[in-house]
Amino acid sequence: MKKILIFDTTLRDGSQRVGISFTVEDKVKIAKALDAFGVSYIEGGWPGTNPKDDLFFAQMKKIKLKNAKLTAFGSTRRKNSKTSEDKNLNAIIKSDVKTACIFGKSWDLHVKRVLQTTNEENIKMISESINYLKSKKLEVIFDAEHYFDGFKSNEKYALATIQSATKAGADIICLCETNGGMLPSDVEKIVKKTLAFFQKIKFGIHAHNDSGCAVANSITAIEKGCILIQGTINGIGERCGNANLCSIIPALELNKNCNCISKKNIKTLTQLSRYIDEIANLVPDDSSPYVGRNAFVHKAGMHVSAVGKKPETYEHIDPAFVGNVRKISISDLSGKTNVISKANEMAINIKNIAEKNVKKIIDIVKKKENNGYQYEGADASFFLIIKKTLGIFKPLFSLKGYRVSVEKDVNGNIISEATVKLDIKGKEEHTVAEGDGPVNALDNCLRKALIKYYPTIKDVFLRDFKVRVVDGDANTAAKVRVLIESSDSSKWWGAIGVSRNIIDASWQALSDSFEYKLIKDKKRR
Amino acid sequence: MKKILIFDTTLRDGSQRVGISFTVEDKVKIAKALDAFGVSYIEGGWPGTNPKDDLFFAQMKKIKLKNAKLTAFGSTRRKNSKTSEDKNLNAIIKSDVKTACIFGKSWDLHVKRVLQTTNEENIKMISESINYLKSKKLEVIFDAEHYFDGFKSNEKYALATIQSATKAGADIICLCETNGGMLPSDVEKIVKKTLAFFQKIKFGIHAHNDSGCAVANSITAIEKGCILIQGTINGIGERCGNANLCSIIPALELNKNCNCISKKNIKTLTQLSRYIDEIANLVPDDSSPYVGRNAFVHKAGMHVSAVGKKPETYEHIDPAFVGNVRKISISDLSGKTNVISKANEMAINIKNIAEKNVKKIIDIVKKKENNGYQYEGADASFFLIIKKTLGIFKPLFSLKGYRVSVEKDVNGNIISEATVKLDIKGKEEHTVAEGDGPVNALDNCLRKALIKYYPTIKDVFLRDFKVRVVDGDANTAAKVRVLIESSDSSKWWGAIGVSRNIIDASWQALSDSFEYKLIKDKKRR
Repeated sequence: MKKILIFDTTLRDGSQRVGISFTVEDKVKIAKALDAFGVSYIEGGWPGTNPKDDLFFAQMKKIKLKNAKLTAFGSTRRKNSKTSEDKNLNAIIKSDVKTACIFGKSWDLHVKRVLQTTNEENIKMISESINYLKSKKLEVIFDAEHYFDGFKSNEKYALATIQSATKAGADIICLCETNGGMLPSDVEKIVKKTLAFFQKIKFGIHAHNDSGCAVANSITAIEKGCILIQGTINGIGERCGNANLCSIIPALELNKNCNCISKKNIKTLTQLSRYIDEIANLVPDDSSPYVGRNAFVHKAGMHVSAVGKKPETYEHIDPAFVGNVRKISISDLSGKTNVISKANEMAINIKNIAEKNVKKIIDIVKKKENNGYQYEGADASFFLIIKKTLGIFKPLFSLKGYRVSVEKDVNGNIISEATVKLDIKGKEEHTVAEGDGPVNALDNCLRKALIKYYPTIKDVFLRDFKVRVVDGDANTAAKVRVLIESSDSSKWWGAIGVSRNIIDASWQALSDSFEYKLIKDKKRR
Repeated sequence: MKKILIFDTTLRDGSQRVGISFTVEDKVKIAKALDAFGVSYIEGGWPGTNPKDDLFFAQMKKIKLKNAKLTAFGSTRRKNSKTSEDKNLNAIIKSDVKTACIFGKSWDLHVKRVLQTTNEENIKMISESINYLKSKKLEVIFDAEHYFDGFKSNEKYALATIQSATKAGADIICLCETNGGMLPSDVEKIVKKTLAFFQKIKFGIHAHNDSGCAVANSITAIEKGCILIQGTINGIGERCGNANLCSIIPALELNKNCNCISKKNIKTLTQLSRYIDEIANLVPDDSSPYVGRNAFVHKAGMHVSAVGKKPETYEHIDPAFVGNVRKISISDLSGKTNVISKANEMAINIKNIAEKNVKKIIDIVKKKENNGYQYEGADASFFLIIKKTLGIFKPLFSLKGYRVSVEKDVNGNIISEATVKLDIKGKEEHTVAEGDGPVNALDNCLRKALIKYYPTIKDVFLRDFKVRVVDGDANTAAKVRVLIESSDSSKWWGAIGVSRNIIDASWQALSDSFEYKLIKDKKRR
């Protein structure tokens, strides 16, 4: 088994993604999660370039990491200057980390056009900077920026920059595919040639995803002898992102006989992925390999029946290995097998139920689907259908009527108001509320009525609200489908409504969502 | 230059993605767009398995494609049965296409556990099915399902299934990486071995993305001799998706000296990608390679200045090649070019207009886009912005107020009513109307007021009505974007509205749509 070092740069290169702006507290939380997961290095930021990163390193002095080495990023010294007076290099030293990762230029085009200096001065910048950090007893990783483009443009010079880094005592050389356009065959060729040139030197890979190949390029580099991978959780990063560690780690562990993270901790990968999205305020990509909500979903009836017989027929790994779960989705492409496995997933033991009831459920679902309903993302509504069909549904509230109005005046002011009349436990509740728009007003109004009887309603968060027209012949009288996703502290669920009236479609989804929450709470007690 | 055949399966395998449910009209629109783009094959669906696909093939008989061959999907015949009596094979023949793509089992595990038949019978199923389709003069592509897993499990049997397909006259053999877990090195090895075994046979690749390597695996297969790629626009598909044609096509064209699509048409790739997302009602992935909104964004100050000096320092390709644009946070030259070309497109001669007005338009559009507006599908609203900014907009009606209400009673009856107060040519018009839902009521009410003054309003048909949540932090108070497409006897146009209130967003789009129609009519007279 080959040991691979995982170098996480979510906090540094990952934070370059458009729209991401971690606070110092966010960064500390993420560092703790990465350490618990078991990465080898956590690149925390670039000391001396912004107050947030300085504050982060200051705070991290108080925190003892169990698995990871905290790493500070930086560049080689400025041209034509003294290393000992370099502000950024001294900021790395001051940050009190054990490992520094500094980048230098390997592409002659960059030396000339961006640094605007000579090839010789760039070589000096690399060796003197590494020398200086080594003299301060730091472990040094040298990031050879644009190494692959540099190698294609001037092989001899690219190799010379690495030679200068290794002579100066760099512990690991990381080959950076900075522009992200390389394909696996390029990476294979260049890594092979480079590693043949240097004996007993440890190499790493840093890949960007501009060609959609960052994962493949990283794995290829490992196959060709690299022992360290720089990447980010969920592949977040500038432009098209960095190499996605959530895809790379399981592939190396399961297919390449490598050891990166303990088996026990890999089981928390899905959780870690969602946690980082949560902190970064990104909507998780449901199609993400290994960790996405749909990574192990089976939709077509034929697939479902095959997976039931033998999982590996349509699953490349056991989802539990990465802490994910298999999901059977209910859709118009599926039949009886889907409905039964979905019910089982929901802990409704349908096997004990009369065949005619199973058929009844399928008929109702089919009819609903013909009317535009879709239960793939709406487990709460599907759960209620099963309960109702089996005659084991006891409503916790029932609607006697609602009214929603939106009024815009001549000055452009808008008021949205909803009133709801409910029967709850035999009592009539009549409430009124305003909101940002009619659906929000209805939501607020319904909560106001329910909370007196069911205080856990306050824990329900509405996570997503989707509307789509389901009629082929669509106009303003079109049938719309509203999908609402909700969560409480322990789970997520989806509910659906369909109507020619968007308000009523929203009402259906909202009331299904609350009903489901209350039934599940009741069971728990 | 090597010619590569692009086989698009967005309409068949792509539609397996959770949450996607194309209407027949959607499918026809997508087929037309794919044909205009220039793919070689469009796999339209699976005849005989659902009424929607049958209707699609029936409708396509009326449409003449310029570039692509419409293809019907299916499977080999059922076990122990007669080919000539096979319902699905006959449905393919009935669909009246020139090309059939049928899949068969290559993995002995599947033969035994899923088909529950013998290896010999499976071989017969393959050859007899292909024979039958060839006897009907169809081009036949054979999809060897699970070929890579099959090859690893029983190399000899996997090869035998292909041999049986080629002997039966299959025109192209497509090696399917159905479970998506392979890495490029696996694909390289197996494709190499397989192609060495068969002389003069044409091979294709069909890859899924469960390891995050579908793009790399497809490109690797081409490097090793395949000449056809099955994939989908934006990589949509079951679980983690199919191979993303938007990443594969530019990589093959620019890095592998292949010819897939004409250079002129590749310039429309970004537009095609967004169009498919729009129809599928998917939020475009901004980080998507080549076509994502952030694919050529430069955030880090250092990168921005380097790109200013020489684009290739941080860009692996020229974004214009795929019809995308570089985005730099400081000065947005691309925005200006866009605005000018769009204005020209709309017959507003912006060249004669002061530079400061062009800048003003750009500023307004940017501000609107930051607030969730998007003008790609909303030419009517964009037209009105230009008119308003140039001070040449004369309103044909103005809003003094509206009120919309939806009321549901205890029997479940719903009434939607709207009232609108307008100023038209100096007169106050106060109208009321009911409708199927609040937006339809508003639509009816607005028409009722306008028709007295502008009788051509009766020619306006509302063709499409789309609603999407645009906030990242989505709940029932989320900001929504309403896009309305309208037509009269001579043209189609789109209008947009954005608000936390769905009624007001709809109002904006509706009134823009009518205003645009009336201005255009006035000009014509």
